[in-house]
Formats: sequence, structure tokens, C-alpha cells
Amino acid sequence: MSVANEVEAANAEYAASFTKGDLQLPPQRKVAIVTCMDARLDPARALGLEEGDAHVIRNAGGRVTDALRSLIISQQLLGTREIILVHHTNCGMLTFTDEAIRSKIRSELGQNADHIAFLPFGDLKQSVLDDIRSLKDNSLLLNVPITGYIYEVETGKITLVEKNV
Amino acid sequence: MSVANEVEAANAEYAASFTKGDLQLPPQRKVAIVTCMDARLDPARALGLEEGDAHVIRNAGGRVTDALRSLIISQQLLGTREIILVHHTNCGMLTFTDEAIRSKIRSELGQNADHIAFLPFGDLKQSVLDDIRSLKDNSLLLNVPITGYIYEVETGKITLVEKNV
Repeated sequence: MSVANEVEAANAEYAASFTKGDLQLPPQRKVAIVTCMDARLDPARALGLEEGDAHVIRNAGGRVTDALRSLIISQQLLGTREIILVHHTNCGMLTFTDEAIRSKIRSELGQNADHIAFLPFGDLKQSVLDDIRSLKDNSLLLNVPITGYIYEVETGKITLVEKNV
Repeated sequence: MSVANEVEAANAEYAASFTKGDLQLPPQRKVAIVTCMDARLDPARALGLEEGDAHVIRNAGGRVTDALRSLIISQQLLGTREIILVHHTNCGMLTFTDEAIRSKIRSELGQNADHIAFLPFGDLKQSVLDDIRSLKDNSLLLNVPITGYIYEVETGKITLVEKNV
């Protein structure tokens, strides 16, 4: 059975007791959260979010480069006025280099991925600081409070890296 | 109080009863889910995902263009072998055009965003079909099953658009 079939069954249960059909499009708590796609991280449970609360943008590493289009839309069209950035321990982005993944793709798929920046990092805390700086320096984003955390997959705890208000 | 303060309090509760510190880095169900950042959509609750199950990639609209880097990493380094794509009703991406948001940014921020494709769409079902086609045609991705759904924010239900196996 594919995961799609399992997802359909799980969704039927969710929809059967669904009571949140009246929520508005703009996030009620006016915040955009940027974090990693990592399977162990559930931003809603770990950060206390309910349906309707927050934009949640996720990609490999929680890098802001891939989040820029979404953040501009979030601020310009849907009124968010705060950004929370969460990277995490034991992240896959700490385990490879651009050259390593490009070489794997070349040998296994016979394809050239030299034009893609995969955005791995060597230092977790620095990756949060770098991404906050990149958001702050971007003139297409509003000057809003940005808070950066590291989530520990071992304990479920977030640790503050920087509050930039 | 900023949302960051509220998030810290919510996380302290989550961490206090956390029991999932032993999960492995690769997603246990070998699936990557691509969906929208929309606040009303909680992929974990709506699709039955537990911590450790699946990569979850989210951006404005759930467009695959912004998800490519993440999907390559997901498949090449972390072993996912299925993709589930979920767009949704009442999506913000149905409400604007590239020219409209670029013009707003020009007049309100005094900045030029003509180089950014914001990826809005006019037809929800077609946006799912287009994104599945774009994934299937990309030679940097593996030939894996892809299933596309529309999530109804009014009912909590997903409706199948296309299974491409």
C-alpha cells in the first residue's frame, strides 16, 4: 500500500470530526515560521500552533533562500509581521557538501546539478545567524521582529539563538 | 507579547512530555509531502503523520519550483521514494498576479521585484496537474509515485486530483 492510500484513510478520520471550516485566510497570529522539512519536527505540536495561526514554510534545512518568495507573499498579501526561524540538531544539511551531492547525481542519475546550490551548512548556530542576517538585509522584506532557534530532536526543546527586534 | 514568547512557553510544555528522542533522520514512511504554507492547513493532523514519518516541504501555494532542492536532497540523501502534493481551496495564490504584487512592492517598498516569479495560479486543479507534470519531467528527480490532492479548508477533506505511479 502506498503512503497516499494511508493518508486518504487518515484524512477521512480527520475530516469526520473537523470543526474549523470558518477560519480566515490571513494567519491569525500574524507570524511566518520558517523551518526544516525534517520528519522528526512537527512545528504545530512543538510550537503550539493551531489551524489558522501561522504560515509555516518548510524546506531542506529551513534555509531562507528558498523561503523568500513565500515570505514576501506572506507579508505583502497576508499581513504577517513577525518571522520565527527554527533549525535543528542532527540536521541532514550538516552531513554533505554541494560537491558530494552533485557527484552522486552525476554518477547515479547521469545528470548535471552544478547549477543548484543545495545550501548545506557546517555549523548549526551559524546557519541560524546567517539566515537571520540574510532576512534582515533583504530590502524586499519588511523590518519585522525575527527570532531564531535551534530545535533539539533529542529532547523536543527549542533553544534561543538570536532575537532581532 | 511577541509570538516568539508564546512559542517558547508552548514548547516548554511539549518538551516536558517528549518521548520521541530516538527517531532516525531518514523519514520512516519514505515519503515527501509538498504543500502550501497556509495557516489553516496542518499536514500532520490532516494527513495522519507522526514525528519521524515524512518530509514536509511547504511554501506559498505548495509549488514544486521552490521544492526542487529539498526533493533532490530528500531522495538522494534520505531515501524517500514517493511524493504527495497537496494544494487547497481558497488559496492566496488564486487572488493575485505577478504584476499586482510587483506593483505593490514598487509603490510601498520602493523596490523592484520584477526578477521574482511569485507563481500564482488561476485554476486550482490545473495547478496540481501542472506541478505533477513538472516533477515527472524533471530529470534530477527519481521516477517515483506522485499523488496530487486538493485539500478543502471548509471541510478538512482531501480530494484526489491525479495518481501518477
